Amino acid sequence: MPQRPLFQRVCIVGVGLIGGSIGLALRARKAAGTVAGVVRRHETARRAVAIGALDRATFDLADGLRDADLVVLCAPVSTILRQLGSIGRHLKPGAVVIDVGSTKSRIVDEAERRLRGAASFVGCHPMAGSEKQGIEHADGGLFEGEICFVTGPDPRIARFWRRLGSRVVVCTPERHDRWAALASHLPHLAAFSLFANPSFRTLFPGRLNPSARDLARIARGAVPVWADIFLTNRKPIRAALADFRASLDRWDRALRAGDGAALRRLIGSANAVSRRLEKLER
Amino acid sequence: MPQRPLFQRVCIVGVGLIGGSIGLALRARKAAGTVAGVVRRHETARRAVAIGALDRATFDLADGLRDADLVVLCAPVSTILRQLGSIGRHLKPGAVVIDVGSTKSRIVDEAERRLRGAASFVGCHPMAGSEKQGIEHADGGLFEGEICFVTGPDPRIARFWRRLGSRVVVCTPERHDRWAALASHLPHLAAFSLFANPSFRTLFPGRLNPSARDLARIARGAVPVWADIFLTNRKPIRAALADFRASLDRWDRALRAGDGAALRRLIGSANAVSRRLEKLER
Repeated sequence: MPQRPLFQRVCIVGVGLIGGSIGLALRARKAAGTVAGVVRRHETARRAVAIGALDRATFDLADGLRDADLVVLCAPVSTILRQLGSIGRHLKPGAVVIDVGSTKSRIVDEAERRLRGAASFVGCHPMAGSEKQGIEHADGGLFEGEICFVTGPDPRIARFWRRLGSRVVVCTPERHDRWAALASHLPHLAAFSLFANPSFRTLFPGRLNPSARDLARIARGAVPVWADIFLTNRKPIRAALADFRASLDRWDRALRAGDGAALRRLIGSANAVSRRLEKLER
Repeated sequence: MPQRPLFQRVCIVGVGLIGGSIGLALRARKAAGTVAGVVRRHETARRAVAIGALDRATFDLADGLRDADLVVLCAPVSTILRQLGSIGRHLKPGAVVIDVGSTKSRIVDEAERRLRGAASFVGCHPMAGSEKQGIEHADGGLFEGEICFVTGPDPRIARFWRRLGSRVVVCTPERHDRWAALASHLPHLAAFSLFANPSFRTLFPGRLNPSARDLARIARGAVPVWADIFLTNRKPIRAALADFRASLDRWDRALRAGDGAALRRLIGSANAVSRRLEKLER
């Protein structure tokens, strides 16, 4: 049975890794009648159309939004916040707006303030992607099997993400942000902090083992993306960071004392949580 | 030109992930005349011989060591330290002993004290492996392209690791331990500490993004292996941990103040170190 489009006209605002991957997945799965993209660079326009992520690209936000049934905002959080202030007047009646920003409370608040009456808004966060950026890394299978948080119970949007291969989790923006602080933002902060250590610059030989290579990759997360995340989720991140610092204090005490039993307990409880999370992945 | 064996008789003491992988690589590359293994469990003996990691397995340390030209100690650090106290009397004259323990100063000190006159000893640390354990994960290609630290300038041992595909880095035990504290032990400590957070037990939904999955995998490192590493490299790890905690203080101040410029600097300097490390990998 051929699958019907979920939305006739989709407009993706910002066509990088995530926006480009959404375009590829939508078109490959025939989930949209047409996919337009609002871009800033000629090279992005050319490439996005060439690889089949977009039917058409435009540099003009109003032009892209004019006839869109679904608008997908795909930019760093601060850009999305700014866009929410300007898109309302260009939307057609009945349009649905979603975003893919990595923090949700600020965005959902701003959307409620700025789009009320103009469009219905659902905050989304597909937990996919990597330290890579740009349309050149776009991949139509990026969302396959990964979760996507959705901050409202709109069935059209849940269907949209499922068609892209995501597992949909509906939850409040606040709960999303607490979870993301714990499971993504703090781990990134720790990786950034580990590799900012100046001793890395002086200590020969500088080659890493496979586990540390994974961490180093995390520490290559892009400045604009991550500065926005940290700035728009400060309270939950600081709460998680406080727990983390208290835990590091326990480690330091155990190390100072040479307390093997305490070290084994600390490692064992990390093993237990991680194994439980691993089971949930299946 | 067929490659000649580097050692006629090799004995691997402890045949898990690393010992088993060494056996597989040695036999596949004809780097040893014969490979014996000292094991504790019948299942390990059976499997190691079945997959071709060993020519023969024994449960008796003295039996395994008796005619060995090269002895490779492959166990957690505390076990290696204990073995160094008992193997001297079983070694044949001229035997060479190496180990693969993750910390080097304590092991090299102990070897100098206990093996002096009985054998020549070279501390080694192949930076390979993962959170996995046991002969069932052994892989003859495990060392390919990875570095192996060697604490002495013995050309036979450098050749041995190169034959297994490793890139050899000769350095003092102290320098190794400082580097390992920074690039491996502290990152593991951080990963253990992140996932020991009790909030992970209560916060729905418990599914991770790809980056956090890499961290969670690191947090499954085995208790006996890692407790030994932490206990035998306390001083360098505590020094690196102190730097890390100071860095987290800077992060917390930037978050509290909502200081975007400071956050961008912190992320940017991690990006720079990580990119430099990435270049060194090539």
